[in-house]
Parts: sequence; C-alpha cells; structure tokens
Amino acid sequence: VKGSPPDLVAGALRGEIRALARLLTVLEGDWEAGAGEAMQLLTPHAGRAHVIGVTGPPGVGKSTLVDRLVTARASEASHRVAVLAFDPSSPFTGGALLGDRIRMGGRALDPGVYIRSVANRVHAGGLSRTAARLVTALDAVGYGTILLETVGAGQSEVEVAALAHTVLVVLAPGFGDEIQALKAGILETADLLVVNKADLPGAERVAATLRAEAAPRGESGAEACPVLLVSAETGAGIPELVAAIRERDEARSSGGGAERRRTRVRWLLEEAARDALWQRYARSHAGPLAAQTLRVLAGEIDPESAARRLIDEDLGIDGEGDDGKPDS
Amino acid sequence: VKGSPPDLVAGALRGEIRALARLLTVLEGDWEAGAGEAMQLLTPHAGRAHVIGVTGPPGVGKSTLVDRLVTARASEASHRVAVLAFDPSSPFTGGALLGDRIRMGGRALDPGVYIRSVANRVHAGGLSRTAARLVTALDAVGYGTILLETVGAGQSEVEVAALAHTVLVVLAPGFGDEIQALKAGILETADLLVVNKADLPGAERVAATLRAEAAPRGESGAEACPVLLVSAETGAGIPELVAAIRERDEARSSGGGAERRRTRVRWLLEEAARDALWQRYARSHAGPLAAQTLRVLAGEIDPESAARRLIDEDLGIDGEGDDGKPDS
Repeated sequence: VKGSPPDLVAGALRGEIRALARLLTVLEGDWEAGAGEAMQLLTPHAGRAHVIGVTGPPGVGKSTLVDRLVTARASEASHRVAVLAFDPSSPFTGGALLGDRIRMGGRALDPGVYIRSVANRVHAGGLSRTAARLVTALDAVGYGTILLETVGAGQSEVEVAALAHTVLVVLAPGFGDEIQALKAGILETADLLVVNKADLPGAERVAATLRAEAAPRGESGAEACPVLLVSAETGAGIPELVAAIRERDEARSSGGGAERRRTRVRWLLEEAARDALWQRYARSHAGPLAAQTLRVLAGEIDPESAARRLIDEDLGIDGEGDDGKPDS
Repeated sequence: VKGSPPDLVAGALRGEIRALARLLTVLEGDWEAGAGEAMQLLTPHAGRAHVIGVTGPPGVGKSTLVDRLVTARASEASHRVAVLAFDPSSPFTGGALLGDRIRMGGRALDPGVYIRSVANRVHAGGLSRTAARLVTALDAVGYGTILLETVGAGQSEVEVAALAHTVLVVLAPGFGDEIQALKAGILETADLLVVNKADLPGAERVAATLRAEAAPRGESGAEACPVLLVSAETGAGIPELVAAIRERDEARSSGGGAERRRTRVRWLLEEAARDALWQRYARSHAGPLAAQTLRVLAGEIDPESAARRLIDEDLGIDGEGDDGKPDS
C-alpha cells in the first residue's frame, strides 16, 4: 500500500487495514509531512468512539484484562475494537517480553480488532498529541471502542489517559505500595478502580486501600470512584466490569462528560498553539536565545530570569533587530 | 522565621536551616511571589555542587541506597549533603508508608544533611523547573552533594534526572520486566546502572540484562555504561559505587560534562521562555482562543489545525483586532 494522505484516508475509511496502518504511521510523523492533511480529512468523520484508558504498573495484568475487554466488546455484532499499547512492557508492543506472555494471537487476526504498539516510536510533538491523532483516525474509520493501555506513572501517561472518556486504573495484590506513586498522577483521574488477580491473597486489602483513597474529597455530592475486584485470568468479575464500562458509555451518549471533553479540547489546542508559537519565535530569535544561553552558562543569570528578559524585551513574535543584549 | 526573600537568602547563606526551609517554600511558589527575586540573589553563589539523580521503580531500595550514599559523603569533614525526594512512595516523603521503612531518623537531625520531600507539592511551572530552583538554592548555600530521588518513569521524571550531573538507575532482582518501561525513558540517560539487593537470587540475571541494554550503540568510541552490583542493606559494593561516583565528580571538576550542562541550560531556558511567551499570548488572545476551542468542540476542525490557524493568523504577540475567525 502506497499513497498520498488523501488516498490513505480514503482506503482506511473503506476498511482497508494496510491503508490504516500506513495512515497511522503518517499521523505519527510531522504535521507538514502529511499528518496535518490527514487530520483535516479525518476529523469530520470522528466523534463517536468510546475511548477507554487502561492504566496501571507493569505486572498487574493490564494486557490480559485488555484482552478480556476486547473479547467482550468485539463479540458484539459489527462492533470493532482497537487497542493502542503505550506500555513498553506490554506483550502487545512486542519486543523482548513477547514470548510467553502474548495472549492476543487470535485477536490480532480478527478483522474486528486492531492492535497497534505506540510504545517505542519517536514522537515529535509529545506522546499525548500523537495519541490524540491516532484516536481520531481509529474513531473516524469506525472503531467503536478504543483502548489505550498505559503504565499510569508520569506526566505523559496522565496526558494520554486524559484523552479517554473512561479511565480504568488497575492494580493487583502485592502492588499496594504503587498506590502512593499513582496518587501523584493518575489515581485522581480514575473512573473505575480495578483490582485484578482477585483470586490471590491480599486482593481485598488492596481494594480497601483503594476505597480509602477514592473516598470523595471536598465537593459535596461527589461520588466515590467504584472499586471492582476481577480476575482477568479466570474471567471472574469481568461481566460486572463490562457493565460498568457500558453504563459510562451510555451516560456519555446522553451528554455526560461534556466538561471533561471541553477540558481535553482546550488542553490539546493550547499545547499545540504553545508549540507553534514557540517554533515561530525560536526561528526568528536564534541570536538572542543563544546570547541568553551563554549568560546562563556563565552563571550571570538563572534560566528563568533569562527567559523572562528575552520575552519581555520583545515586542512581537516577528520582531527584528533584537541583539539579545540586556538593557543594563 | 519570617522575612522577605533577601532576608531568607541571607539567612540560608549563613547556614540557618529554618531560613533555608522557608526559602525553598518560596522557590516552590510563583516567580512573582518571591521566587524570582530569590533566584537572582542565589544564582551567583551556585555552581559547585555535584548533583546525583537516583532513579528506579518503587521497591528496588532507592531510599536505603540514598541513605548509604548520604552516610558515605556526609562522613567527610565539612561536606554537606542534601536529598530532594520526588518519589511519593519514598519513606523520605513521609505519608502512609513512613512507619516501618524510615531509616534516616538520625541523618535528618545531622546538621550536615538536609532532606526535603518535593513529591506531593503543587508545581506551577512543572516539576523539573521547581527542582532546578531548589538545586540552585541548595548548591548556593553550600551543599556539596545533592541527591535527587525519583521513580524514573515518565517525562517529568526524565526531566528531573536531566538536572543531575550523574544519573544512577537502580534496579533489583524481580524487576527485570521494569527494564522495558525504563527503556522508554530514563535508561539511556544513565551514567551508572546499579543492581541493588545483589545478595538475592536473580541479581546477576538483572545485571546481565542491563549490560545488554547498556552496550554502546552506534557511535564509535562510546563506552558501555558500567553495571554495579550492591547491597544497600549489607553495604556490599557500596565503596565501589562511591568510588565510581567520586570519579565522575572529579571528571566534572576538570571540565567533563560541559556538553550535558549546555543541553540542560538550553532546555531550562527554552521551557521557561516558552511558558512566558504563551502566558503573554494567551492573555492578549483570550477571545480567539475561545472561538477556536468552540470550533474544535463542534468537530469542525482538529485541535492542531486550530492552533496553527490561531498562531499563523497572528502578526504579533501583542497583536490586536484578531477576532479568531478563520479566513475561509
């Protein structure tokens, strides 16, 4: 499959898997190299998919759980499911750990299921921006459910999860300590807290800790985030989890989550605008930038003061004649 | 202790611990609320400390290792050591896990050792910018070694580690899977790879995996990153680790790491300039920003196209009269 962005978009919209794969590769690349053109063509077709983030530390069984969720949704007539795997230790992402842990062999060949590893690729504009593009494309070509598998620690993980309509945070017995790490990031964005491997000892203790963390804080009328115990391995608790996800999907269809959507759009727009503004500025101010860098390296000024001086001195992003020298 | 930023800086430079604590709190706050004034006073005094990042997943024993390193350096005459703990699961950060894991009780009272938790605070300008300010302050007031304890996964973690002259990535037996997760982030920035709990079974296997990952890639003349086996609990291997760190410190004093320093300074400057530029732009373009947000929410345009249209339409960051409407 070769072709221009419009050809690839047309092919992907017709359901051609190889065109879709090529299209996603284009979307992972530079805006000017075709990603922008493709996004403009895809956007009018998007807006229906339910995007579900599945996040948690390596080892809690996220991939097995994702497999279960894929099977549950893909078994419905004409419902297509896509998985974007951002966890580099996920079996979906291939690599060294693929061998004994892969469970999706059959699924990957199922025409209703599309799986893509995004873990080890280079992302010019940040992981979350790439993720947003891929979600738009998969949504546009008709995947009704899009699962984002992420590790759930760190800023870019939180940003990827923020793309989801529904965020599942997954833990397992023996991962109680990780709750503290998650607290600093993803825990507060969770819609459903899932304790996997519920057949192992200690599951109830992890669930109790999560319930304490998930207790509503501050706002009156706030509801506690539900904690579900499941075993992705045996299937126990999976129907209840699928029902809870479906409930959220229905709430979304009837207008729920509008506030979150507004926040997400505003954030994606601002991040992109910030980058575009900076690129334009840096191109036209290479000299002053280099001069201030030297001053910081010489210990004359701290980086933040230098940055403020640079911007405050400037009168326009197309400004000329600024030699970067301080006023003093 | 109360006082203006200049008072706090003067007190901290005289060695007053309470003034230092207050000063760091000011530095964690807004630039305009005193952080900027303090940074300008501190910067001329900074530039001597050896900054060491200690990163790795929760559970590998980072805190015990940090304790060992603190003890090793603080036992030297007149050498002062500071620890900034960014790992929310670290015993240094207090919280739920404090009880049975804290080992620094004595150290925290040692006048040559200063410990600060940065994990759960709010950071207006990003964690790494706050970290850079705190490092400058601790450096300026005379801490010769500054240890940054971080989890090592995710973008902000990588950014914090990038502040260090020397990055230790710590793993332990049973954490082989985590190598994949670290690969996407911090592993390539490591200067020393440390396998802790080397007395436990499986340590040699983790070390072998790390050696394979750390093999020099591409560039001719590149050296493999050393892999050291230690037990922070028993002290085995610690003298060798301390020697390796000291070697890096001496290389730094004789001009090593200049390239990394340039990259770090450039990055801190650009991040701050990008923010300052954006704040100025967003203030003067609230209307067009809101208009484009609505267009994205309506599905008319994708966020990146909207952002580019916004910036490209604009002729100056103080521009007026832009109503945010598209040309078409």
